[in-house]
Amino acid sequence: MTSVVAIHRASTRTATRIRTVRVALAGCGAVGGSLVRLIRESEREVAARYGVRFELTRVLVRDIHRARPVELAPGLVTADLAEFQRAPAEVVIEAIGGIEPAASIARSALRAGRRLVTANKALLAAQGTELLTLARRHRARLDFESAVAGGIPVIRALRDQLAATEVGRIRGVLNGTTNYILTRLDEGRSYGEALAEAQARGYAEANPARDVNGQDAADKIRILAWLAFGAAPERLPVRTRGIAPHADRRAADAAAAGRVVRLVAECASEEGGVTAAVEPVLVGEGSELGRVQGADNAVIIESRWNGVVRLLGPGAGGEPTASAILGDLIGGGRQLRLSREQAAEGSDESGAHHWLISTQSGGDAEARLLSTLERAGISGERLGGRGAVRVITAPVPWMRADLAVRALGAAGLEPVVTRLGRD
Amino acid sequence: MTSVVAIHRASTRTATRIRTVRVALAGCGAVGGSLVRLIRESEREVAARYGVRFELTRVLVRDIHRARPVELAPGLVTADLAEFQRAPAEVVIEAIGGIEPAASIARSALRAGRRLVTANKALLAAQGTELLTLARRHRARLDFESAVAGGIPVIRALRDQLAATEVGRIRGVLNGTTNYILTRLDEGRSYGEALAEAQARGYAEANPARDVNGQDAADKIRILAWLAFGAAPERLPVRTRGIAPHADRRAADAAAAGRVVRLVAECASEEGGVTAAVEPVLVGEGSELGRVQGADNAVIIESRWNGVVRLLGPGAGGEPTASAILGDLIGGGRQLRLSREQAAEGSDESGAHHWLISTQSGGDAEARLLSTLERAGISGERLGGRGAVRVITAPVPWMRADLAVRALGAAGLEPVVTRLGRD
Repeated sequence: MTSVVAIHRASTRTATRIRTVRVALAGCGAVGGSLVRLIRESEREVAARYGVRFELTRVLVRDIHRARPVELAPGLVTADLAEFQRAPAEVVIEAIGGIEPAASIARSALRAGRRLVTANKALLAAQGTELLTLARRHRARLDFESAVAGGIPVIRALRDQLAATEVGRIRGVLNGTTNYILTRLDEGRSYGEALAEAQARGYAEANPARDVNGQDAADKIRILAWLAFGAAPERLPVRTRGIAPHADRRAADAAAAGRVVRLVAECASEEGGVTAAVEPVLVGEGSELGRVQGADNAVIIESRWNGVVRLLGPGAGGEPTASAILGDLIGGGRQLRLSREQAAEGSDESGAHHWLISTQSGGDAEARLLSTLERAGISGERLGGRGAVRVITAPVPWMRADLAVRALGAAGLEPVVTRLGRD
Repeated sequence: MTSVVAIHRASTRTATRIRTVRVALAGCGAVGGSLVRLIRESEREVAARYGVRFELTRVLVRDIHRARPVELAPGLVTADLAEFQRAPAEVVIEAIGGIEPAASIARSALRAGRRLVTANKALLAAQGTELLTLARRHRARLDFESAVAGGIPVIRALRDQLAATEVGRIRGVLNGTTNYILTRLDEGRSYGEALAEAQARGYAEANPARDVNGQDAADKIRILAWLAFGAAPERLPVRTRGIAPHADRRAADAAAAGRVVRLVAECASEEGGVTAAVEPVLVGEGSELGRVQGADNAVIIESRWNGVVRLLGPGAGGEPTASAILGDLIGGGRQLRLSREQAAEGSDESGAHHWLISTQSGGDAEARLLSTLERAGISGERLGGRGAVRVITAPVPWMRADLAVRALGAAGLEPVVTRLGRD
């Protein structure tokens, strides 16, 4: 049951139909709280571009008296599971984690034919096939972009495109908490210090067991193998070794080998079936996975038809996870209402850069290059090297550098100009 | 008009409803030809997992007598535009490129309420708003994942998730042809040699003007700015400088500065509006964009809610582009039929690895470590370093390394084992 209202957009003077979707949210911690803020702050933009707005009809919390990261009207909040499940809603978001009551919430939502959006990798890894069967039977829908790799859109990449390209292998860093700890160990911290820091920053739970023993990453690789190979997640054996115990010794081992440790999750389709593993691996500091820093995640997908695709980004944190949930809420494949009224205005003065300007050497080229830049009020430093006269300018906006280059061209010096990047 | 047939899957003994979607394809070159092969080879998998199959009803070519990369039944092929447009089809794929006859094909498909899937960045950059308006008016659908960054799923990432996260800036390498040429220049080739190689490999057209003058990348950044900021692509000014002329001198300039050249496309939402540029930039060889090699593309998306997401992969070539088109054909947001009958069987013997095994030092730890490995038939080399006794083994499968580690544990040596990655 979806109500449609017409709102008037003052800027365009056209009535735009905006569909209201009622949403019941289970859980209002770091993820749920960020989602409430994101839904509120993006409301206008989402309405304008997707033609939809989300109305929170109930929020399930453990304790209605506890302080929460966002303000919620008193009538909105409940700690009563049955009351939550009766809330009028087209979509139920499950952002609690763990198996119960998450599994009950998920089942009742799907049985009622509602769209279920869940961030719960443990639940999907344990009961994914059953939940999907339930969804199909009740013509409901199950989405879980936020369950793997936080804000990296890997679920939709696999589901909507890459699953049909004969994926051979997926590997990556799928647990932000342990990656944060491991990169702190690279910097010389002890495991105890690094874990405490991860907890202080909100990356690690009070009980970090499922992160550090590799179970969380194993749940996630099960989900990716499910999407890529159709392997039922609850039946896929994942050889799993965590970063603890002995994380300090392993860090010393890595240093002795001139490498760093990453907790690598991988799965592959091989002749005997699908294999999967999570384990600490020694990688070069400058290697693809060695460069994954802090709570970031990385997913590398190899397929026959599409080569190697790499997706990197924030793997943990309330806001990226909330972004992924909002994407599921909006709904895959919705056509964007693309052109807004905001005029696109290119500004040439946006930011100054260093420029490398060269001219052919010989004759009085150097003197003319320097004097032209001087007349343009651009200071610069001579750069060595053969075959040309080269100057690296002080930071100036594009327009000013370009004027000087035009003057050099008019003087017959055949200038070449190239921006210096920041890295 | 969609026909539904029931096919019997022997493996599961259940009838699965497979929807047939009729497809008319304009263009049968590198992209169109790869797509025909991909549709054929993925047919079973796509039917099983997405419940859909694609039936080619007509293929538009310039010359029906020319050799093509795939075999097509004679009745399928036509060089007559009017005949092509009359073909029965729910979906029209435009893989011709350029403005005409692509624009006519696109318009007639949308006016007929068909889904239009196009790889045509030039057409979208020039007429995107008009085509989208036409699509909405006729309740048709417009998809163009393959128009930007080949097989990297950046369009769906932006459209389905990141467009609602307040994107601030997008930058990247969006032209595979010029990136291939630039990385060959890094290796000491001349521009003429590198361009000839790119043409021989099929990355560059006979007329590479739009690649090397930056127009192709400018079209693509217009499309990304459209998705991220709603800026109408045909009205967005893009400050554009290509890699030619003077590519050889610029390569020498880069070498003199200790850097490499990348053709960087970027757009940003700033106070004055949306800015966009394409230009050669000097970047560190080990930097994010400096590491983008050959015909690969990279897209870096910064947003307020979702941090920095990086997407990398094949930016050119028939197969990745065809993969992206197939993703559009399947249709965003379709629920996967996830669990296939193929049993997931973990194999411990899949591949041998080097392992770093350490034990606490002191006493006869070293002798016991070495003798335990010897009894397990595993050879290894002592690794230096303080605090522990360390051995790097010869390549052995996980199971054998694990048995040796268990034996060390049983002997009270507190072993730590870590796999050595390949990089």
